[in-house]
Amino acid sequence: MMQQPAIGLGIGLRLLAEGPDVAAAQVIVDQIVGDHTNLDDLRRVADGIDVITFDHEHVPPEHLRALERAGHACRPGPEALIHAQDKVEMRRRLTELGVPCPRWAVVETADDVVEFGLPAILKTPRGGYDGKGVWMVGTIHEVDAAFAEASGPLLAEEVVDFERELSAQIARSPSGEFVVYPVVASLQRDGVCAEVVCPAPSLDSGLAGQAQQIAVTVAVELDVVGMLAVELFETRDGRVLVNELAMRPHNTGHWSIDGAVTSQFENHLRAVLDLPLGSPAPRQPWAVMVNLLGGAVRDLVAQRAVALATDPDVKVHVYGKAVKPGRKVGHVTALGDDLDETLERARRVAAIMTDGEVDG
Amino acid sequence: MMQQPAIGLGIGLRLLAEGPDVAAAQVIVDQIVGDHTNLDDLRRVADGIDVITFDHEHVPPEHLRALERAGHACRPGPEALIHAQDKVEMRRRLTELGVPCPRWAVVETADDVVEFGLPAILKTPRGGYDGKGVWMVGTIHEVDAAFAEASGPLLAEEVVDFERELSAQIARSPSGEFVVYPVVASLQRDGVCAEVVCPAPSLDSGLAGQAQQIAVTVAVELDVVGMLAVELFETRDGRVLVNELAMRPHNTGHWSIDGAVTSQFENHLRAVLDLPLGSPAPRQPWAVMVNLLGGAVRDLVAQRAVALATDPDVKVHVYGKAVKPGRKVGHVTALGDDLDETLERARRVAAIMTDGEVDG
Repeated sequence: MMQQPAIGLGIGLRLLAEGPDVAAAQVIVDQIVGDHTNLDDLRRVADGIDVITFDHEHVPPEHLRALERAGHACRPGPEALIHAQDKVEMRRRLTELGVPCPRWAVVETADDVVEFGLPAILKTPRGGYDGKGVWMVGTIHEVDAAFAEASGPLLAEEVVDFERELSAQIARSPSGEFVVYPVVASLQRDGVCAEVVCPAPSLDSGLAGQAQQIAVTVAVELDVVGMLAVELFETRDGRVLVNELAMRPHNTGHWSIDGAVTSQFENHLRAVLDLPLGSPAPRQPWAVMVNLLGGAVRDLVAQRAVALATDPDVKVHVYGKAVKPGRKVGHVTALGDDLDETLERARRVAAIMTDGEVDG
Repeated sequence: MMQQPAIGLGIGLRLLAEGPDVAAAQVIVDQIVGDHTNLDDLRRVADGIDVITFDHEHVPPEHLRALERAGHACRPGPEALIHAQDKVEMRRRLTELGVPCPRWAVVETADDVVEFGLPAILKTPRGGYDGKGVWMVGTIHEVDAAFAEASGPLLAEEVVDFERELSAQIARSPSGEFVVYPVVASLQRDGVCAEVVCPAPSLDSGLAGQAQQIAVTVAVELDVVGMLAVELFETRDGRVLVNELAMRPHNTGHWSIDGAVTSQFENHLRAVLDLPLGSPAPRQPWAVMVNLLGGAVRDLVAQRAVALATDPDVKVHVYGKAVKPGRKVGHVTALGDDLDETLERARRVAAIMTDGEVDG
């Protein structure tokens, strides 16, 4: 999706592709097939380009530091990115900064977890994604199972009694310029983002301001360059607590492709190249983004015609990935003046795309 | 620019590139370098793809008919496209259909032109572009010069006393579905489109309706598939007359990339693939598109930062072409609620991009 604004702005992209058939390799001409954990592959990508940036957090920090020592610009840089890579580093730094987090501790044994208090959430510090590497534990038996599945110390966090999840996004340049997107609400199902509504409906303006201020604080203090998404819990007692950080365009910002004057992908490119940033203003009062998760429909391309026929205003995005159950294979976005109607339109088209029926 | 919505919809493109360095070859992975007048090259492109479409009118009709005989789907087809390729064929057919045109005749000698009446416009039936192959003649000397430069018969047209130029665009599918874009005003300088305003300011609604009806008639009667642009003269006595036809995404529709729910490029793809069409509705009351024509600024990429800094709401498009004087190398689009302010914003950013100054 970064290629779309890159074409518009005349920015050349070079891709490090895991394999020749990945989705991005279908649309980026200058591509190198390699492994993001292999420093030689990273050096081949870095050679002769202006800026290295990322669409995931899994490039080893030591490789990024080696690239920086060799004179390559990594944006975000490894000292910022470590807080999106390692959840313990993130909790330590945010706590130092006074940013509100769930209660947390590093735990190495089941006894540590009992001392922390049950129930709890256990997380592997690194490498988790979309619910993987995360355990909700209520019993010693479950704690033992988590340690058996993981290896090494875990991050324990309190189980937050939350009303819903929010996301605050900011784009920030090396020169310090930043723009803040509206705070959105994200609905998770089975640990995976299912829907995003922009702006978060009925969100208290003070709480929205706090969420945006947290994003600014994190971006400035951690020297984040590019897009930052701060995922937050809105608690039932009216607070916001940081759940996760992502330093890249993020699923909770996909609404902005069709719904904002400047999409998160365009502002990510503009930020990492230290170009002036574009307006993050929404184009219409409401934007609803529904992820297409692999379902009954196997042939998205055939189904696309049915979906497009139902609503000439809904935007359908198909990622060119093979359909597997639950995998994010696309998304749809509806914009409108009325929230309920916009939600219904987006959900209807998404249901047709994934389940082949209106009431899926 | 077709690649941007192709990525969104998960449509794979194969490019016939004139050379490995052309702009489109920078962003389309599946590319064949060849000559669009060479049937073997065209066959290589056609092999294994669903639909052949075009971003110019210069593929020889006999090659398109050969591809169709071999079972390839050309959209638009050669029987439609001939009317965008050959101005005499276009005038004959439109006149048959009762579509209002300037007075015209085929002329083979200077005497024919004198009989037609001077002053007149002379045009080569095929191959003209952006003012090339067009002569405004007021004297026998100028008529002789035109015939000397051209070869074969020419199309003579009356010099229309026009108020301004308009463009009516329509997207049409093989199944007959169509959507009509708002009628826009285009400002030409030296025979090249300089600015487009959507919708055409203060256009009489009856005349706008006539322009759109002409586009529908042409699309249906000529069986056009994909985008059709009908360029029209608005005469000082309140009529619309067809100037030119283009059967592809057209410069007068570039405003739709940022300014419409569905851009002309997306609807062209949807139309030629017989996918349901998207809404052509404008996103805001006014859209102004200003072409970037090669000027004092040679390094558009460096200038981009200055331009983006002046207005976070204006969208800048850079085509990745070498800058030559007067060449279209990009465009900018501004959207707004007030026409004068929107015009000023678009012109200011365009002047910075091409001339490096605010009052260029």
